[in-house]
Amino acid sequence: MRTVEWNEERVCLIDQRVLPAEFRVLRLETPEEVARAIRDMAVRGAPAIGAAAAFGLALAARRSRAADRAGLWRDLEEAAAILRAARPTAVNLAWALERVLRRCAAESDPDAIRGVALAEAQAIADEDVEVNRRLGEFGAALIPDGATILHHCNTGALATVDYGTALGVIRTAHEQGKRVHVLVDETRPLLQGARLTAWELQQLGIPFTLIADNAAGHFLRTGQVNLVLVGADRVAANGDVANKIGTYKLAVAAKENGVPFYPCVPTSTIDLSTPTGDDIPIEERPPEEVTDLVFRGMPIAPSGVRVANPAFDVTPHRYVTGIITEKGIAYPPFGVSLRRIVETP
Amino acid sequence: MRTVEWNEERVCLIDQRVLPAEFRVLRLETPEEVARAIRDMAVRGAPAIGAAAAFGLALAARRSRAADRAGLWRDLEEAAAILRAARPTAVNLAWALERVLRRCAAESDPDAIRGVALAEAQAIADEDVEVNRRLGEFGAALIPDGATILHHCNTGALATVDYGTALGVIRTAHEQGKRVHVLVDETRPLLQGARLTAWELQQLGIPFTLIADNAAGHFLRTGQVNLVLVGADRVAANGDVANKIGTYKLAVAAKENGVPFYPCVPTSTIDLSTPTGDDIPIEERPPEEVTDLVFRGMPIAPSGVRVANPAFDVTPHRYVTGIITEKGIAYPPFGVSLRRIVETP
Repeated sequence: MRTVEWNEERVCLIDQRVLPAEFRVLRLETPEEVARAIRDMAVRGAPAIGAAAAFGLALAARRSRAADRAGLWRDLEEAAAILRAARPTAVNLAWALERVLRRCAAESDPDAIRGVALAEAQAIADEDVEVNRRLGEFGAALIPDGATILHHCNTGALATVDYGTALGVIRTAHEQGKRVHVLVDETRPLLQGARLTAWELQQLGIPFTLIADNAAGHFLRTGQVNLVLVGADRVAANGDVANKIGTYKLAVAAKENGVPFYPCVPTSTIDLSTPTGDDIPIEERPPEEVTDLVFRGMPIAPSGVRVANPAFDVTPHRYVTGIITEKGIAYPPFGVSLRRIVETP
Repeated sequence: MRTVEWNEERVCLIDQRVLPAEFRVLRLETPEEVARAIRDMAVRGAPAIGAAAAFGLALAARRSRAADRAGLWRDLEEAAAILRAARPTAVNLAWALERVLRRCAAESDPDAIRGVALAEAQAIADEDVEVNRRLGEFGAALIPDGATILHHCNTGALATVDYGTALGVIRTAHEQGKRVHVLVDETRPLLQGARLTAWELQQLGIPFTLIADNAAGHFLRTGQVNLVLVGADRVAANGDVANKIGTYKLAVAAKENGVPFYPCVPTSTIDLSTPTGDDIPIEERPPEEVTDLVFRGMPIAPSGVRVANPAFDVTPHRYVTGIITEKGIAYPPFGVSLRRIVETP
């Protein structure tokens, strides 16, 4: 199944909180349940969040008992507000909701709105898979045979509707017959690398080595990495990139060692209305994500410690070699190239 | 009690594998047991390892049944070889063993050797505490009132015989009445920051915030850190620093943001016979240190994954602002300043 899909009037999600220990599917019946799944990170990854939110809005349209357009519209706007507030950083969330709302606004009949809301959400999901495959082709052209690729967080099928962004690039290179080896950052605090990326690479038969995030610098400095691939939650108009916490330090170390650093994103992740990275809200997540860890039977921190847990950081564009999208690769100056790529039909 | 001490013909160590959940003291009776405690990281931190090894050699001298000097010397050399092989990176281990052996070599009577072996190990332990206090005074002079200090791994009383190196600097500043706040890197994989540094700071009443290592770059980039303090396992003659994995990436990000980066070491950690960081052996530790982690009841990685687990990395001297020792602070060019500081009586 896809990471996010519509099935029998429900939004079905692979619950990413329990992988790889368990493969569990959530079947959500209300937009509130979808918002909670996004907030609790049962579904995560900017493109997957976008598709889940779009389906959540379709759910609102179809479950609304409003008989007239005005009543239905109120229900839709209420659901959109709840979904939009679930997480602040990934721009795909707002982008997908706007897209469904805009499509609905063109209809006057409530039943027609119920139909197009689902059709548009489904289109967003289908396009995401197609977009990732095209992105994968552009990115794979950069990967030499025998490459070692350092990867942070999870950007695979689980972060998208299917196939993946940065991991989709790696998968495309692998399917093209190139030998690749992936150094998988475990990605504390939520360990999306160890839990999800390692699991996906295992399924795909792509060779990899799991490392603590702290070890990435050692491999970069000692010349053992050919390129760094990551996803992103939002790309600002100037090319600054918000992505999973730890990306910034990795990008700085990559540049310091002359290793190319490429975020891989659908153009829906590029937000031309956000001028720079400083304008991107950085989500602070619960302290338990850092402390709820047991090592050899023992909690990893004394009780009652104060914790800071920013979920994302901003990598200024000067560390970014290029941004791989489904319409090609944007290179500096990003202020020009990103606008051109977004505006390309 | 001290982290490492001699008591009733045994080497007593605070078992750092079970902190902060449990305060357990190991009472070791043979050099082999001491070597195992070092290898398994029941005791860790370069100065603590040095003192433990010295006491381990004293144990060998006192337990040897050899009646003549030659037999005793064979037992001592055998024990020294076992202890020296326990871990490769910290130079204090070899330094402490050499110091005890050199002192023993000056004696001819077996019983005199048994006496001086213990006396020399005790001197190493006592001097370590004294050295850390002097180091703390030099370092504290660099800390402004109200400073936020980023700290990696554990360099406190638990990493030494007592008081600590980088954490000793912070403790001295705190005792001088300066307001300090410590950002504590959790320090994956073995979480010495979350487990040990957080625990020590709690005991000392020094305010701190625990963060995932990945978050350090965010705090550096957003101007929330005044200086970075770390320990080291070996400093090469040119100022390159081997320290806990993750230090390199941190140092690069610090320099990139104009934040001073100071390793804090006793001069026994400076190894003038190692020309550069490339000549320092980097220990590869068991994969289970990365994967033996349970998050919310689930293992963090699928079974059977390949893991790389380098325990240390090398920070080239160009990222090092200064090296704080008990004899003052060495500044670039380190090739000159480190030699001068080591040769100062």
